[in-house]
Amino acid sequence: MMSSTTIDVPAESSNVAKGKAVLVAAPRPGGWKKGIAIVDFVLRLGAVAAALGAATTMATADQTLPFFTQFFQFEASYDSFTTFQFFVITMALVGCYLVLSLPLSIVSIIRPHALGPKLFLIILDTVFLTLATASAASAAAVVYVAHNGNQDSNWLAICNQFGDFCAQTSGAVVSSLVAVVVFVLLIVMSALALGKH
Amino acid sequence: MMSSTTIDVPAESSNVAKGKAVLVAAPRPGGWKKGIAIVDFVLRLGAVAAALGAATTMATADQTLPFFTQFFQFEASYDSFTTFQFFVITMALVGCYLVLSLPLSIVSIIRPHALGPKLFLIILDTVFLTLATASAASAAAVVYVAHNGNQDSNWLAICNQFGDFCAQTSGAVVSSLVAVVVFVLLIVMSALALGKH
Repeated sequence: MMSSTTIDVPAESSNVAKGKAVLVAAPRPGGWKKGIAIVDFVLRLGAVAAALGAATTMATADQTLPFFTQFFQFEASYDSFTTFQFFVITMALVGCYLVLSLPLSIVSIIRPHALGPKLFLIILDTVFLTLATASAASAAAVVYVAHNGNQDSNWLAICNQFGDFCAQTSGAVVSSLVAVVVFVLLIVMSALALGKH
Repeated sequence: MMSSTTIDVPAESSNVAKGKAVLVAAPRPGGWKKGIAIVDFVLRLGAVAAALGAATTMATADQTLPFFTQFFQFEASYDSFTTFQFFVITMALVGCYLVLSLPLSIVSIIRPHALGPKLFLIILDTVFLTLATASAASAAAVVYVAHNGNQDSNWLAICNQFGDFCAQTSGAVVSSLVAVVVFVLLIVMSALALGKH
């Protein structure tokens, strides 16, 4: 009796191990990669909206004060500031790139194990992340000076006069920062998908 | 005669094909990965110099004009501008991160096929690329206004008076842009090394 039970126990434990091994292998491989590819696509859609929204908000920022002196009328628009012109051009470029990258993102959903599209996207994403961050940060710096002014260099805050203009440019900067955050998420997800295959 | 020559030709061509296959497989696998890891380390050293150089150049930018009025003396230093304070702090942080990342880069040289260090580096590189680009671009925007002024908002160019200060801050911005370019190269190289294993 003793010998038969001692033989039974290891036999049962090996069965349990086999059952566990089957359970672990059950989810089809690459399923999480497809999930990441779908999240990638949705995030790209959001980034398109953020980038194009930032560009159009900045491009339409224009305010003329209701009073004028003998010499000139006070008007502020985005092309008063070189930095804001750069912002509009760059954000439009980033938006176009994101729209053009959507088909490649769809290819990644259909073929989650294809390396080519992922590599192409992560490299271009890095370049356009830099572009988007540069334009967002430089516009933010100018908006900051417009809000607060600078005593030592005698630059006066213009947001007291041009309130609507300042509100609109600040909104554009916030929208572009959303695009930057999405870009960082996209690159991190692509790196994880590239590394774990 | 005809039949024997026609048999010889395919036999010879298959030998050539075999020889080629051996030649292609000859270089030991992963050799180019070690090369990329070494270039990564060297680029990181350069980026450390660029980032810390930018931080110190900006932090030491200080100019006092040799004349003063009844009320105040004209002085410009990096802490006159919030953007430049941000620049100094961010560039010092980026420099510290790059120094701390050197050991991980060495691990990648010793073990070119290890995934962990590469993934860790590419994700943190992306975050610090964003930080470096943001500070470089915002400082560049302020330096631009300092050089050119802005007519519509009545901000006068201060570089006529504070020539040395402007030269030093411009140099710091250029140095930080070098760090940004190196970061982009590092991420592209890491992505290629991650993808082709």
